[in-house]
Amino acid sequence: MQKVHLKRTKRLHQGHLWIFSNELFESPKAYAPGSLVSVHDMHDAFIGIGYINPNSLISIRLLTKKNETIDRDFLKRRLSQAASLRDRVSGSRDAYRVVYSEGDYLPGLIVDRYGSCVVLQFLTFGMEKMKVMLIELIDELLKPEVIVLRNESRVRNLEGLPLYKEVVKGSVDKLPVIREDGVLFEIDPYEGQKTGFFLDQRDNRVCLTRYIRQGKGLDLFSYIGAWSMHLASAGAEVTCVDASERAIAQTNRNAELNGLTGRVSCVCEDVFTFLERELQDGERKYDFIILDPPAFVKSAARLKEAIKAYREINARSMRLLKTGGILATSSCSYHLGKALFAEMLQDASRTAQRDVRLIELRSQAPDHPVLLSMPETEYLKCAFLIVD
Amino acid sequence: MQKVHLKRTKRLHQGHLWIFSNELFESPKAYAPGSLVSVHDMHDAFIGIGYINPNSLISIRLLTKKNETIDRDFLKRRLSQAASLRDRVSGSRDAYRVVYSEGDYLPGLIVDRYGSCVVLQFLTFGMEKMKVMLIELIDELLKPEVIVLRNESRVRNLEGLPLYKEVVKGSVDKLPVIREDGVLFEIDPYEGQKTGFFLDQRDNRVCLTRYIRQGKGLDLFSYIGAWSMHLASAGAEVTCVDASERAIAQTNRNAELNGLTGRVSCVCEDVFTFLERELQDGERKYDFIILDPPAFVKSAARLKEAIKAYREINARSMRLLKTGGILATSSCSYHLGKALFAEMLQDASRTAQRDVRLIELRSQAPDHPVLLSMPETEYLKCAFLIVD
Repeated sequence: MQKVHLKRTKRLHQGHLWIFSNELFESPKAYAPGSLVSVHDMHDAFIGIGYINPNSLISIRLLTKKNETIDRDFLKRRLSQAASLRDRVSGSRDAYRVVYSEGDYLPGLIVDRYGSCVVLQFLTFGMEKMKVMLIELIDELLKPEVIVLRNESRVRNLEGLPLYKEVVKGSVDKLPVIREDGVLFEIDPYEGQKTGFFLDQRDNRVCLTRYIRQGKGLDLFSYIGAWSMHLASAGAEVTCVDASERAIAQTNRNAELNGLTGRVSCVCEDVFTFLERELQDGERKYDFIILDPPAFVKSAARLKEAIKAYREINARSMRLLKTGGILATSSCSYHLGKALFAEMLQDASRTAQRDVRLIELRSQAPDHPVLLSMPETEYLKCAFLIVD
Repeated sequence: MQKVHLKRTKRLHQGHLWIFSNELFESPKAYAPGSLVSVHDMHDAFIGIGYINPNSLISIRLLTKKNETIDRDFLKRRLSQAASLRDRVSGSRDAYRVVYSEGDYLPGLIVDRYGSCVVLQFLTFGMEKMKVMLIELIDELLKPEVIVLRNESRVRNLEGLPLYKEVVKGSVDKLPVIREDGVLFEIDPYEGQKTGFFLDQRDNRVCLTRYIRQGKGLDLFSYIGAWSMHLASAGAEVTCVDASERAIAQTNRNAELNGLTGRVSCVCEDVFTFLERELQDGERKYDFIILDPPAFVKSAARLKEAIKAYREINARSMRLLKTGGILATSSCSYHLGKALFAEMLQDASRTAQRDVRLIELRSQAPDHPVLLSMPETEYLKCAFLIVD
C-alpha cells in the first residue's frame, strides 16, 4: 500500500473523512484511481487508511483511523455495524437505508432496502473497485431476492466513472411493495428517481399525520405521492402536483393500493405554473400544503438563484393557506444550510405578509445518520409551520 | 392611550414583538409601567399596540399589529386561538402548555395544564396588570378545578415585580396525576420546579423510547424521573441522579405509580461528582445516558464558562457509554444556540476520543411554538447521539 503525507491534518483530527487534493504533499497523480493508501502527517505519524482518486477534488476518503487491513472481513464488519444500527432505529420495518455512505464509515456506498429488493449506489472510484466483494457481502447479509445497481448519480462523473444501471440478481418485472406505518407503496427500483423512493422523509411523513387528519390540501412535487398517502390515510383530501407523467401514474397506482382514490387526486403540471394559476383563483383556501421540491441548489455557486426559487414557492404556498393552515416545507440541498433555510422562510413570510410559527424543524430519518464532525452528511431540512 | 414613536422599526416589520428602550424617541419614563401604548414610526405611521415598562430593557412588547381595542374580547380571542392550536398539536392529552408567551402572541403569559389543574406565570408588568381578567378568562375557557400562580421567575425582578406564588382556585392538597403516552406522573404545581413539570421535553421523551427499549443507563439531572419512567416502561433499567432530595422522593413516587420500582433506582448526588466517581470505576459500561441539565447559561456574558460545563458533562457521559451507546443530551439555554450546541458536542467528542453520530436533533414540543421572526422563542436543543 502506497503512503500519502498531508500538509494539513486539523480537519481529520476533528473527525472528518475527506482529504482535498491541495492538502496532499505528494502529487495525487502518482496514485492509481481507487487504490488504497496509508495516510500520514508530515512527521510520518499514521492517521488512517483510505482510497484515493487523483481525478477528484476530494482526493482521499478515509475508511478507518486504525491500522487495519481493508479486506472482506473489514467490509463485513462495517456492513454488520450499519445493519445493527438499523435494527435499533428502524425496528421491524421492511424499507430503510441500510448503508449511508460516510454516515456509516463507508464513504461512497449507499444501500437501500425495499422488502426483498436491495438497491445499491457506488458513488466513488474506491467503492467501485470493491463492488464485487460488496455485492457478495450484502447478498449474504440481507439475503434479498433482487439486487439493483443505480450507478447513475452525476457525482460519478466527477470521479471519472461511467453512469449505468443494472439488475445483478433476480428481476424487477414484479415491483416490490413496501409498508410504511400501515401505508403501502409500490416502488420502482429500476426506473424511479434515485433508488426509487425517498426514505429520508419517512419519519417526517408519519409525524405530519399527528397534525393533519382532515381538511383539503396540496402535495407539491409529489413524486409517487408518499406524503399524500399518509395524510389521506389519516383522513385528509389531497391533490398531488408533479410534472412527471410517470410519477403521477405511480401515484394513482399507490392510491389504488391503499383504497384512497376518493381522497387523492393528481395534476400533472409544473408546480410554479400550478401555483400561479391557483393564486389567480384566490388566496387562503387550503388547510395544508406539502412542499418537498428536488434539490434546487446543485452547487454553492448557484445558491442565490436557488434561494430565490425556494422563497418564491414558499411565499406562494403561504398565501394559499387558510389562517392557521399548515405548511410542511423541505429542502434537500446541502448548500442551503439550516440557518439559510430559516432565513429564506422568514423572507417568504414577509413576501406573503403572513405571520409564521414553527412547530417542528426536522431532518433526515435516523437511518441516514449524521457524522457530527462532518456537516456534509446532513442535508435535509423539513419544517412544519403554522401560517397565521 | 399614549403614543410612542420609534427611531428604528426594521425588526418589528420583520415580525419581532420587542422594542428596546434605546429605540424609543420619547423617554420611556413618561409612561406608567404596564400601560398600553400605540406604537408609531417617526412618520407617525401606525405599527401596533403593546404594553410598556419604563423600568425594563425591553420597553415594549407588542400585543397586536392591528389597530384594535385591547380588552376582554381581544384576550379571549387570543386565548381561544392558543387553545385551538393545542387541539391540533396536542390531541387528546391531559397535560400541555396552553399559552406560550410570544409564541402565542401573548407576551409575558405562560399557561400550563396538568389535568384539572392549571398553572400560570405572569412574567411582565403589562400581563400582571391584566391578571384578574386573564384568570377569569382562563377559568372560563379551561374550567379547571385548581388554579395556581407561580409568579417566582427572576425575570419579574427585571420588570420591577415582586416574586410570589398563590393558589387562586381550589386546593393543591391532592396533587394532580397526568398521563403522558401511557406513563403516569404526579405533578407538584406549587412546590415543583417552574410550573411543576417540563412539558417542553414531552415528545423527546416519547421519541427516545423508539431507540431504547432495553439495557442499562443513567438519567442525569433527572428531576422527577420523566425520561426514566418512559424508558423503564419500555423495558430499560435506569438510575436517576439528582441533587434534590425532593425530586428524588417524587421520582420514587412516580416509579411506584407506574409499577417500575424494579427498573428505576435513584441516587441523590451532584451530577459532576457522580460522573467523576463513575469514571474512576471504568469507562464504556452503559447502554444509554440521558443528560438534561438545567440552564447553565443564565446570561450571554457567562456563556463561555457555561459551555465549558456542558462540554465536561457531555465528554464524561460519552466516555461512560459502550460502543454504539446512545446519548440523549439537551440544553435549554437560549444563549447557547443550535450551532454552538453542535460545536460543543463535537468538542466533547474529541475530549472523550469517541466518534459520534447524530440520529435526531429535536427541539421544544409543538405546544411551545416558535415565532419564525423571533429567535428568542426557541430555546431547547435535544440531540440523540450514537457514540461509537
